[in-house]
Amino acid sequence: MTTAVQQKILQQVADIFDNHVPFHNLLGLDIKRYDINGVEVVINMKPELIGNIHHNILHGGVTATLLDVVGGLTVFAGLVASKDDWKIEELQQRLTTLGTIDMRIDYLRPGRGEVFTGTGSVIRSGNRVSVCRMELHNEQGTHIAFGTGTYMVG
Amino acid sequence: MTTAVQQKILQQVADIFDNHVPFHNLLGLDIKRYDINGVEVVINMKPELIGNIHHNILHGGVTATLLDVVGGLTVFAGLVASKDDWKIEELQQRLTTLGTIDMRIDYLRPGRGEVFTGTGSVIRSGNRVSVCRMELHNEQGTHIAFGTGTYMVG
Amino acid sequence: MTTAVQQKILQQVADIFDNHVPFHNLLGLDIKRYDINGVEVVINMKPELIGNIHHNILHGGVTATLLDVVGGLTVFAGLVASKDDWKIEELQQRLTTLGTIDMRIDYLRPGRGEVFTGTGSVIRSGNRVSVCRMELHNEQGTHIAFGTGTYMVG
Amino acid sequence: MTTAVQQKILQQVADIFDNHVPFHNLLGLDIKRYDINGVEVVINMKPELIGNIHHNILHGGVTATLLDVVGGLTVFAGLVASKDDWKIEELQQRLTTLGTIDMRIDYLRPGRGEVFTGTGSVIRSGNRVSVCRMELHNEQGTHIAFGTGTYMVG
Repeated sequence: MTTAVQQKILQQVADIFDNHVPFHNLLGLDIKRYDINGVEVVINMKPELIGNIHHNILHGGVTATLLDVVGGLTVFAGLVASKDDWKIEELQQRLTTLGTIDMRIDYLRPGRGEVFTGTGSVIRSGNRVSVCRMELHNEQGTHIAFGTGTYMVG
Repeated sequence: MTTAVQQKILQQVADIFDNHVPFHNLLGLDIKRYDINGVEVVINMKPELIGNIHHNILHGGVTATLLDVVGGLTVFAGLVASKDDWKIEELQQRLTTLGTIDMRIDYLRPGRGEVFTGTGSVIRSGNRVSVCRMELHNEQGTHIAFGTGTYMVG
Repeated sequence: MTTAVQQKILQQVADIFDNHVPFHNLLGLDIKRYDINGVEVVINMKPELIGNIHHNILHGGVTATLLDVVGGLTVFAGLVASKDDWKIEELQQRLTTLGTIDMRIDYLRPGRGEVFTGTGSVIRSGNRVSVCRMELHNEQGTHIAFGTGTYMVG
Repeated sequence: MTTAVQQKILQQVADIFDNHVPFHNLLGLDIKRYDINGVEVVINMKPELIGNIHHNILHGGVTATLLDVVGGLTVFAGLVASKDDWKIEELQQRLTTLGTIDMRIDYLRPGRGEVFTGTGSVIRSGNRVSVCRMELHNEQGTHIAFGTGTYMVG
């Protein structure tokens, strides 16, 4: 079960990431789902995101961006889920310190496709630092990239 | 000394990366210098690249993109430099297989600034695979991020 | 189905890694299983492998060693599996160039336990370079570490 | 200038790492220097550390171990250096939570040599998390490996 405070902060964060981060708007990044169990972030292919014009392949920087956003949102959802009695102010405070410490990206296959979906899961969960693994697939289920990111969460 | 073929391929690559990669145009990515000794890639801050509106900080995905581009260009320059008697067709062929296998980014400080410059150096050089370290600084010399990337070069 | 050549080379490799690598003997590293589908490598806890005497925890360097060995063996099994008509000499030749290019280790939990088992799976498979993800668990199924490694396979 | 408390804790840590970590004794790991500016850790080649008997090359797991130890000691020295008025008990407490979160190793050249020396420098310094870059050279100055590690320091 999700508490009202948990639900509220996740909605606020989804709204910020969806509508108020200029670079997400530039890419057309879209938070499809964001709840206590994780996140689904989508980018639709468009000509401006292409890195290789001969093969119409997504630029690796878009992949990196999507994976990083997924990682940050996933570890934050994990933090929100870790306690039932958060005050909303505490979580808003935590959000200001959320940041990527390091990230590894493994490019598995060329980024071909129409819709790219990123998902993640927390592999190490802490009060200060969490580590997340992320995946990027296209609309046909082709696995395009893996990510592993270490995030400051407090 | 740089041979005519080396000079020509590096100019072709700089032209492609500067003018014909849609995602580079979207970001305003600019190849300031590209020769046999390496590359200098610049992005000027603009509102669309912001990741954190409260603090006007560059999105981490822009940092990742810049570092990845620097890495690819640096290892390719290293390949070009590794032989004096390349045929231009061989190098053009190699360019089609140039790709990032994996990359680690270390975010050191918030991406504040007006002009972000990426540079790199090859740490492992091979005929098939090369590894590069990359750095991102702002116009005041503040060190914002490190990268380490493994690239397919043939 | 596994061909006779595939079976033979995997046995040879398992024998080398099990019996003829001095550092594996020093650690007591044991190849429990090695076939075309992958590998299971085990290290039994012993006092010499401890990194933290107050808590009797496995040294992180032992974890790194185990994950690296698992990664190398896993990508080599993948290479062996990729063709039915290898000649044994070709695979023996490939073995001489097998090597780790880079590796990331994520330490998830302290290395407590009696028996540590490493397993892996190939995430990017190539004729020259393969990428593998590795895991380390103790005898109770506690997940202690993840690895991601990029290997030269030819 | 180094305070008496700083000097004392660094000596204590060097003594523990040099003499009381069983796995360090097994490898013959030796802390040559440890002060507020960093660390120099040495391993002498011996037959038990070999990974490749045909070429007498150091096992990659020994390299990983050495780099990880260097990283931990370097970030701890950075923490010690960050304040002049530490109490020894605070630093001893911090030592108990010192741990590797993640590490990347780049293997640059085969580990040939007689004496392997690891050094490091902090690239991101924090009260909770620090990031370090490490290097391994042999006695001839050949650069064998790079490391990048993220450590919990509090």
